[in-house]
Amino acid sequence: MSELHVVLHPRFPPAVDTALRSMPGVVLHCPADDAGVVRALDAGAQVLATFTWRPEFLRPSLRWIAGTGAGTEQYPLAQFRERGIVLTTAAGVHAECVAEHAFALMLALTRRIGEAVRHMTARRWQALPGEQLAGKKLAIVGLGRIGEQVARRAQPWGLEIMGVKRDPKRYDGCVRDVRGEDQLDAACEWADILLLAAPARPDRSSLLGAGQLERLGRGWLVNVGRGSLVDEPALVRALESGRLRGAGLDVTAVEPLPPESPLWGMPNVVITAHNAGDSPGFGPRWGAIFARNRAAFTGDGEWENLATGRAAA
Amino acid sequence: MSELHVVLHPRFPPAVDTALRSMPGVVLHCPADDAGVVRALDAGAQVLATFTWRPEFLRPSLRWIAGTGAGTEQYPLAQFRERGIVLTTAAGVHAECVAEHAFALMLALTRRIGEAVRHMTARRWQALPGEQLAGKKLAIVGLGRIGEQVARRAQPWGLEIMGVKRDPKRYDGCVRDVRGEDQLDAACEWADILLLAAPARPDRSSLLGAGQLERLGRGWLVNVGRGSLVDEPALVRALESGRLRGAGLDVTAVEPLPPESPLWGMPNVVITAHNAGDSPGFGPRWGAIFARNRAAFTGDGEWENLATGRAAA
Repeated sequence: MSELHVVLHPRFPPAVDTALRSMPGVVLHCPADDAGVVRALDAGAQVLATFTWRPEFLRPSLRWIAGTGAGTEQYPLAQFRERGIVLTTAAGVHAECVAEHAFALMLALTRRIGEAVRHMTARRWQALPGEQLAGKKLAIVGLGRIGEQVARRAQPWGLEIMGVKRDPKRYDGCVRDVRGEDQLDAACEWADILLLAAPARPDRSSLLGAGQLERLGRGWLVNVGRGSLVDEPALVRALESGRLRGAGLDVTAVEPLPPESPLWGMPNVVITAHNAGDSPGFGPRWGAIFARNRAAFTGDGEWENLATGRAAA
Repeated sequence: MSELHVVLHPRFPPAVDTALRSMPGVVLHCPADDAGVVRALDAGAQVLATFTWRPEFLRPSLRWIAGTGAGTEQYPLAQFRERGIVLTTAAGVHAECVAEHAFALMLALTRRIGEAVRHMTARRWQALPGEQLAGKKLAIVGLGRIGEQVARRAQPWGLEIMGVKRDPKRYDGCVRDVRGEDQLDAACEWADILLLAAPARPDRSSLLGAGQLERLGRGWLVNVGRGSLVDEPALVRALESGRLRGAGLDVTAVEPLPPESPLWGMPNVVITAHNAGDSPGFGPRWGAIFARNRAAFTGDGEWENLATGRAAA
């Protein structure tokens, strides 16, 4: 196998570096910053492993972006198609982990773990009666691999589950009641807990605005999808008014969430820094896909998680 | 049905007061403190609903303690037997809720929710790569109703599960690998996560000492059983040394946990104030048992959750 020069963006999920380093024939470049990424590409590297995108990464040598994130909304897909640059994603690599994180956020809200931890810093022992998931209504918006993994884990928990999916006809998972996106308002009305596990919309417009949050009423919102799905000022107002019961957010409209956001200070909000999918298992699973796609890159076999392009090696 | 005077201790789980108030023929007394409890008993009330115990509650009129907690370790059982005072418990009433809380604590540790909330107070966006439960080894110590509910919920989560039970021969639940308490050391050696869901031992001695924590190694401890089960100074040392990965504690050796305890300040520890079983569902479920036991108290039917005694009404 010929040598393959791969540039790894300085920000990457756990153990991706280890996975790449252990591959025979991969020459790994690990620049310290975006400028270093550009220099490494200009030195001839054809492959960039990244989940962030900067316009200056579009160098002539670039043939394949081995995405380390699940989404594609940050990339100039039309330009990739025009130039025949392949983009593959990490979709599904962290689905199980994100599903666990979604449960961690749901339970942090119903069992009031965030409030308890805030009491810990004051060394205050105070019972915080919580709620049970059993008997609650969970609407999962987005029934891709993440949403499906949540639904599977929820089977013995006594939750009622409704799924909302762009194309319900293409669904063959474990959720019985699956509806189209035109039923989102009804889902909000119905749900105690609304879980967003959908990708960003192509135009990054929001799915959940003031009207939907009003319909959710005294429910909880958990977002492990994309921050752009939620009208964040409307979310802040729904929380400030005391109407919405709480929110668990792994993603926000702007990331990092600015220090001035009122969400930081709300006791019924739990924020994690877009790390729902991060676990030591990420690198090995991503590496297995990378290895198969490397074969496809050299004309041997099919691409996996292909988003755009069809580069000639 | 004749009138039944019931004294409700000022500390009670959610909605127990509402449940008692809605019962025809129950005259409810709600004193503000322990002295008021004694006065209400001396005024002729035969029934005390409580989970705390004070020696001065042992008044001549007292015939039935309708326990609002699961355990019995706080009561002078020999004296109750001698006087023919009935003690019933709330065992099983909150098993499902405690099981959810146990998951909330496990996931708070593996997904680092406690650390994330501490970062929130500093308005700091920092990715905290966590771990997955899938593939981990969970030892459940105590396979009563709570432990069983945890095991049931865990079925689709990809955990390996071992149970430890005083009398494994009396077990007929969903866990395949169930061992006696003499296998506790082996369970600690094996486990990534050790979950205590057992009652206090009669002599309140600890089950988990320095040796067991050493065997647990770089694992996590979750305790929704009783604080006395753990040698707390040994736990603090295991956490301070960095060997134990974290602890989720709903119960502590002394409750309330004293402000000077170093556990409050540890970022990899999550403490909740013995509220794992508290949810709005508690009152109605407890009330249903109370109603049946009220019939038994008047000689009609069998006692439920009977711990001691056999009062003549």
